Amino acid sequence: MNANSDRYVVGVDFGTLSGRAVVVRVADGAELGSAVHEYPHRVIDDRLPGTDVRLGPDWALQSPEDWREVLRTAVPEAIIAAGISPAQVVGIGTDFTACTVLPAAADGTPLCETEGLAARPHAWPKLWKHHAAQPHADRINAAAAKRGETWLPRYGGKISSEWQFAKALQVLEEDPEVYAAADHWIEAADWIVWQLTGVQTRNVCTAGYKAIRQDGAYPSDDFLAELNPALAGLTGKLGPEPVPLGGLAGTLSATAAGWTGLPEGIAVAVGNVDAHVTAAAADAVRPGQMVAIMGTSTCHIMPSDSLAEVPGMCGVVRDGIVPGLWGYEAGQSAVGDIFGWFVDTCVPGSYEREAERKGVSVHEHLAALAAEQAVGQHGLVVLDWHNGNRSVLVDHDLSAVVVGQTLATRPEDTYRALIEATAFGARTIVEAFESSGVPVREFVVAGGLLKNRFLMQVYADVLRRPLSVIGSEQGCALGSAIHAAVAAGAYPDITAAAAAMGKRTEAAYLPDPERADAYDRLYAEYRRLHDHFGRGEDSAGAAGAGRNDVLHRLRALRNEAGEAGA
Amino acid sequence: MNANSDRYVVGVDFGTLSGRAVVVRVADGAELGSAVHEYPHRVIDDRLPGTDVRLGPDWALQSPEDWREVLRTAVPEAIIAAGISPAQVVGIGTDFTACTVLPAAADGTPLCETEGLAARPHAWPKLWKHHAAQPHADRINAAAAKRGETWLPRYGGKISSEWQFAKALQVLEEDPEVYAAADHWIEAADWIVWQLTGVQTRNVCTAGYKAIRQDGAYPSDDFLAELNPALAGLTGKLGPEPVPLGGLAGTLSATAAGWTGLPEGIAVAVGNVDAHVTAAAADAVRPGQMVAIMGTSTCHIMPSDSLAEVPGMCGVVRDGIVPGLWGYEAGQSAVGDIFGWFVDTCVPGSYEREAERKGVSVHEHLAALAAEQAVGQHGLVVLDWHNGNRSVLVDHDLSAVVVGQTLATRPEDTYRALIEATAFGARTIVEAFESSGVPVREFVVAGGLLKNRFLMQVYADVLRRPLSVIGSEQGCALGSAIHAAVAAGAYPDITAAAAAMGKRTEAAYLPDPERADAYDRLYAEYRRLHDHFGRGEDSAGAAGAGRNDVLHRLRALRNEAGEAGA
Repeated sequence: MNANSDRYVVGVDFGTLSGRAVVVRVADGAELGSAVHEYPHRVIDDRLPGTDVRLGPDWALQSPEDWREVLRTAVPEAIIAAGISPAQVVGIGTDFTACTVLPAAADGTPLCETEGLAARPHAWPKLWKHHAAQPHADRINAAAAKRGETWLPRYGGKISSEWQFAKALQVLEEDPEVYAAADHWIEAADWIVWQLTGVQTRNVCTAGYKAIRQDGAYPSDDFLAELNPALAGLTGKLGPEPVPLGGLAGTLSATAAGWTGLPEGIAVAVGNVDAHVTAAAADAVRPGQMVAIMGTSTCHIMPSDSLAEVPGMCGVVRDGIVPGLWGYEAGQSAVGDIFGWFVDTCVPGSYEREAERKGVSVHEHLAALAAEQAVGQHGLVVLDWHNGNRSVLVDHDLSAVVVGQTLATRPEDTYRALIEATAFGARTIVEAFESSGVPVREFVVAGGLLKNRFLMQVYADVLRRPLSVIGSEQGCALGSAIHAAVAAGAYPDITAAAAAMGKRTEAAYLPDPERADAYDRLYAEYRRLHDHFGRGEDSAGAAGAGRNDVLHRLRALRNEAGEAGA
Repeated sequence: MNANSDRYVVGVDFGTLSGRAVVVRVADGAELGSAVHEYPHRVIDDRLPGTDVRLGPDWALQSPEDWREVLRTAVPEAIIAAGISPAQVVGIGTDFTACTVLPAAADGTPLCETEGLAARPHAWPKLWKHHAAQPHADRINAAAAKRGETWLPRYGGKISSEWQFAKALQVLEEDPEVYAAADHWIEAADWIVWQLTGVQTRNVCTAGYKAIRQDGAYPSDDFLAELNPALAGLTGKLGPEPVPLGGLAGTLSATAAGWTGLPEGIAVAVGNVDAHVTAAAADAVRPGQMVAIMGTSTCHIMPSDSLAEVPGMCGVVRDGIVPGLWGYEAGQSAVGDIFGWFVDTCVPGSYEREAERKGVSVHEHLAALAAEQAVGQHGLVVLDWHNGNRSVLVDHDLSAVVVGQTLATRPEDTYRALIEATAFGARTIVEAFESSGVPVREFVVAGGLLKNRFLMQVYADVLRRPLSVIGSEQGCALGSAIHAAVAAGAYPDITAAAAAMGKRTEAAYLPDPERADAYDRLYAEYRRLHDHFGRGEDSAGAAGAGRNDVLHRLRALRNEAGEAGA
């Protein structure tokens, strides 16, 4: 009997609305039990808890106490659900949304929990989707481009308003007292590990993707001072030297053992990001294995042995997914959200009633109708920019374009065209990697959209390649558990642990050559529209002449009209 | 007491699904009573009545007996409803859909009613929206362009598959026996007058707009023979020399007096077309008065004292609306149809229920929500080509484009954008006339969309001009009654009769300058998209380089997919 067959690890996934714990067998990755804790405060975007302090537009905060509560409730519940003894648990690993970041006192106490700061919005953790720092990100990008900062191309040419520096600059300029009071400006991914171990660590992944750490260094104080003299020195607040993923952050403290019911002293893995940790869960941590975590949006994660500047990627970070490889990230800013929006606001009551009569969801009803069509039969092509475009255009002010509507267009036609549009978006990303010299050898799907089999087949046909699929419905938590197993010394490295504990079905969907040929024609139309509407407006006569920046002008007009009406 | 104050005329409007009779006082156009008769056979597009003979795609026929029945039922019912004596009626006038055309024997009997031909599809009247003669129209257009036929620019560069020559060529080539048996190839507008008077006449209007009669001549036999040698001589079947609108076609025959209950011998006006006759009903028959009959689609009718070649107009015909002026026609192939399609297939059940709760239609609910917005607030611009584009692009294979959708786009946003799109389409037509040297002095609205006040205001704002509105809900029948009054000698001409009997409120809607300015910006986007997607694909470097013919390629792909799936 394998020594690992009665040893277990716990993975805890901190999401946007809840935290999930799963108990996993070290030997084979079997998921024995899990539990979910919904955050009581969910996303704080209206007013601060227990106060009358209102938040501005695009703000999104969270409560650290909600996160601790996951450790106190979901972990012990998962142990009970698994039917094992806590004593059999040898390690715990975590992953977090990112960049979710908070100011903390020297001992790690979140500033929002310190005397007199609970009513100061900037003292609270900023959730990844806090977008109020866009002006600050714009300034960072402009200054970096002007100075030719070498790190900029590592982020596809633009850093995001979601990341650490933009959010820190916002705190500094809008509430300098809070900024000054913060000894630490810390990723939640690292903060939760500190809570578990009592010792501060910093993980390579968020340091690279969210805090612009490249080639062993953060942006220079000289650069930061150009943005705001007081921003110089920020890197001193970012924590100790980053440590590799899968590493041992420390051991479970007595306090955390009390919260979780797990044995004091077991291994605690270095912090990590939800998307990145999924690669291990899918056993897809080798060069060229692109994992697409497809849900409301899609995140693409891929290790590679070569470094390249891929236009419009989110970032490339050495050791960012697994030690020893370059880790690439790209994304689509809305995928499932588009289908959800369509079903909620564009499908008539008659379809709702027919779905109910058939005992299926509206999504299933539409997918079944759409699946009956031949490629191109609906006469539509759509640009999937309903929430802007993350990769490869990196432009949140873009919006969607629907081409080819007629009086005969039915809801299932548009539903299918929207699915295809997101597949074309994914193909655009894959091609950006390949044409930059970073081969994509396997496309692996994880996430909630896996259950839409029609959608999966569309992706296989559009991408013209077999799709592999993850074998778990809780990929993030499983991935964290795998990292815990490595930290506990059960496997020599993430690759070995993923091979034993990760789950992937190769070539679960195969492309149909005839459909793929037809999709090539639609994709050519998509790409042409993509460049026409997405790449600004260059002067007549230049290559790509005749581009149309109408989407930005419509957005500007919308914003003016909204202000005039407010 | 005015001699006309106890004299009445009857107008009969033969529509697509029914015929309507209205009794009108000669003195002032007061509408005293009306009645409608629905055609029992409606549109025959599936199989011939009483047979197993199936019709092909895009066929649309009607039954002559349905039309006669309007005379037998709706006319006497309207007299009763009006509470007058039939003896007080001094004239009757008619208008018809066009081009609705039928083959008839020497005595006017429709061929479908003659021995042995009832089961032959081509023996039946072809309704205006019979579109199965498109290949024949294409050949006519190609040949005319090649030969430089001088009449072609009078039709904006293209004749329609709906018109007399295309439909005749289809009969000739698909059923030469029926073609040979037809002594007459006659507009229904003239056929119904023949039924009333017992004497064949031909009206100037349909001869010009539908049978390519220009400068006193039809297309030459030489031209017709080039299409098909047997087509030469067709013009001999088109009836006698055309007579002016408002003229006296003859007097009511004893037979027709028996059908209608009206006095034998009263005046019968020359036949006319539903859209064109509406100009008189709106008292808008002077140069530069453009009447837009807005319903499922929109038809634009305008007299002018100058002749010009307006790109993409449907046609210009001397005396085509009133004698002595050039009559222009243009059109939008879908307007109300677009809003109907949207409400039927794109609005969620929650909106249906909310409208029901408020006791309003879904249209009214959406319009009320849309009306709350500032111009541009929805961030959308739409090309209104859901049923192709009649003017100014004359291309039925175009389809619609929606630009600017986001996850925040609500049904009322799109509803408003669709209304605006049709207003932009109308402005494009108005500008085509004006830039061709044909000034539009007044924009007069008639038709069912008048009741949507929000839509009317959008049109005023987009067109940047006051809108006049017709004062009748049965403009066609009223217009026919006015023509009857002229034919009866109660007025010297249509202009005088229209001034006394027509009804128009000038400047019923005034543009708001601020909204108009904002719409100018949206309209500029519309026009740019219009040319990009609507004007084909010219070579790089030419003026307007970078156009995209994607709509035609999507249509081709759709047709291929449909055939493969069939």
